Amino acid sequence: MPTISHKGQQMPSSPIRKLVPFAEAAKKRGVDVLHLNIGQPDIHSPQVALDAIHNLDMPVLEYSHSAGFESYRIGLVNYYAEHDITVTKDQILVTTGGSEALLFAMMACFDPGDELIIPEPFYANYNAFAITAGIKVVPLRSSIEDGFALPPEGAFEAHITRRTKGILICNPGNPTGRVYTPEELERLRHVVQKHDLFLFADEVYREFCYDGTQHISAMELAGISENVVLIDSVSKRYSMCGARVGALVTRNKALYDTAMKFAQARLSPPTLGQVASEAALKTPKSYFESVNAEYRERRNTLVEGLNTIPGVLCPMPSGAFYCVADLPIDDADVFCQWLLEHFQHEGHTVMMAPASGFYAEPALGKRQVRLAYVLEKDKLELAVECLRVALQKYPGTVPA
Amino acid sequence: MPTISHKGQQMPSSPIRKLVPFAEAAKKRGVDVLHLNIGQPDIHSPQVALDAIHNLDMPVLEYSHSAGFESYRIGLVNYYAEHDITVTKDQILVTTGGSEALLFAMMACFDPGDELIIPEPFYANYNAFAITAGIKVVPLRSSIEDGFALPPEGAFEAHITRRTKGILICNPGNPTGRVYTPEELERLRHVVQKHDLFLFADEVYREFCYDGTQHISAMELAGISENVVLIDSVSKRYSMCGARVGALVTRNKALYDTAMKFAQARLSPPTLGQVASEAALKTPKSYFESVNAEYRERRNTLVEGLNTIPGVLCPMPSGAFYCVADLPIDDADVFCQWLLEHFQHEGHTVMMAPASGFYAEPALGKRQVRLAYVLEKDKLELAVECLRVALQKYPGTVPA
Repeated sequence: MPTISHKGQQMPSSPIRKLVPFAEAAKKRGVDVLHLNIGQPDIHSPQVALDAIHNLDMPVLEYSHSAGFESYRIGLVNYYAEHDITVTKDQILVTTGGSEALLFAMMACFDPGDELIIPEPFYANYNAFAITAGIKVVPLRSSIEDGFALPPEGAFEAHITRRTKGILICNPGNPTGRVYTPEELERLRHVVQKHDLFLFADEVYREFCYDGTQHISAMELAGISENVVLIDSVSKRYSMCGARVGALVTRNKALYDTAMKFAQARLSPPTLGQVASEAALKTPKSYFESVNAEYRERRNTLVEGLNTIPGVLCPMPSGAFYCVADLPIDDADVFCQWLLEHFQHEGHTVMMAPASGFYAEPALGKRQVRLAYVLEKDKLELAVECLRVALQKYPGTVPA
Repeated sequence: MPTISHKGQQMPSSPIRKLVPFAEAAKKRGVDVLHLNIGQPDIHSPQVALDAIHNLDMPVLEYSHSAGFESYRIGLVNYYAEHDITVTKDQILVTTGGSEALLFAMMACFDPGDELIIPEPFYANYNAFAITAGIKVVPLRSSIEDGFALPPEGAFEAHITRRTKGILICNPGNPTGRVYTPEELERLRHVVQKHDLFLFADEVYREFCYDGTQHISAMELAGISENVVLIDSVSKRYSMCGARVGALVTRNKALYDTAMKFAQARLSPPTLGQVASEAALKTPKSYFESVNAEYRERRNTLVEGLNTIPGVLCPMPSGAFYCVADLPIDDADVFCQWLLEHFQHEGHTVMMAPASGFYAEPALGKRQVRLAYVLEKDKLELAVECLRVALQKYPGTVPA
């Protein structure tokens, strides 16, 4: 039997996946597992999108244009304009989820061995796409103590080598919930311009900003117009993760044309997902207002609750629907498994994502977990109570 | 502005795409362009699949499992069993079209610089995926004179080096329409086993075999069970190209587990496409019978018609819905453009795919074109007439 590839062997297996069998076993024992581990929202998709699917009038489920339906791209131009991002339909490439947008951007811009700086902790699958494209990820640590603020300019510059070709940010951040301030983005802009780097900006949580925090897109930054690639997706915006529709947006024509060649090879993004996504552009403002109000309430419940537990530190995030908490424990991987394998509080337990998967050096996330507040408020209260009790009972809890 | 990648620069741009502006210009002049250039069938998708979309009861368009909905994979097990392919649900990975299945197979099996032997002419996008994965394509010429039969065992062996790691076939073939015989597959099986290679078998046209020709899957070949990866798709089978649902099928667990890591990184295949595809498993036999009868009739009309034109050689294909014709011309790229730019016959012209895109060495396809018989019979008759007249008028026609 021939051997599998080296890249295949390097591909990471997420620490969450290792927990799945333990969660299943817990459920078989009758334990109610509260899932704070995943980014699959429970919010309904917009009715206008579901209606478009129900009323589909398309006797042949045809390919779309490789860049996506033109009508959808024209609709997206207006959507972006409402978010202060001025682009044309020929600067938007509709992709199969944000995942494909990032992979196309990496393939179009990076040669094997080129380096990509990413502030960590970062979305675990960035590593997987980097391995696919042969890119060397250079992590740049941000710290929980200052709420995962963007590292200073000098920290970026200390990591720039002759192979550095770009920076990747996620804003609002997964897993951190950080929304970068104008000052942070200005120093990022400066580094990108000074060293003529690509800037990949994953902004799929754009709509999820709280307490009046304004999201600023990397596409709005002056002087680096041709350096920026926006990675976008409808997955979180409309709670349509299964549509698998995203977008690569750039004003750099050479880059766009190159990404298009990768897009042409895979023929077209999903037609049905695009039908839903185009219809979703008509989602009323009230939908977002109520979704945002709901998430803000959930965030407050979870984060305020966590911070009342002795030894727990959880910065209040301004965006997305995640937070990272530092726990008074020996090892988050072990603790998360213990919660599923050996613990229950009045019939409940909690499943969380160990933060080790979000750091290039897993040991850095050893005391940290990511929690997604995608459950209703009363379940989040229950989750906080479970954690409070669990930290009293867990053998690896570190005394204050 | 930073430069784009070398891979991006190497990515091919299909010769068909260069023709698109000329086709658009012809239409603007009022010329009816008969599209024999693309594999987008005009056949309706099965009603049972469209109904499933219309009746969708899913308030949140969620991710599916990264390997695809379990219920769909269980359905596929039965589908494959009906085609004499015995697999379990855990050997099926649902992908975003056959394209993604092939890319995952390449990434899981091949390291950059490894060699993949492909009989040519072959589907142009194989080159694009090979570039993406860093694979060196080693073309092995098959010839129009013997209907694109699989080359002899010695021809494969003459191309095997220490970097050869696999063979890729398309059966039934795009662009050739060839359905490999039991003898051809037996010698392929022997080469694969003797040299312990991977065998990627693109069988997305399985249902399209004519005149009683039996399709034999690479999955049925004895003794190479762990070497074979089946690349599949619903695109052609159900005329649902836009669903973007395919499958990677293999009994090789290490390979499957590795492909799954790439699948997990992109989260899930399209949910709506899977809903349609699962429902399509209930498509009545009569649908395929009538579609096959229609294509057989079209094939006969086109191929018999082409062979009545002086100097044209077009082997009668047994499968898929393409044929390759050798024309008495100087250069098929020039001829195909001339047809759109300077020719019309009673208001009609023909758009075809120059075969140069299907050969690793474009010059080999210089006199050849691919024609897809995805139009109704009367339009195909018109297309043959157009070509007959065009070959009389084209300045680059080579006298018999």
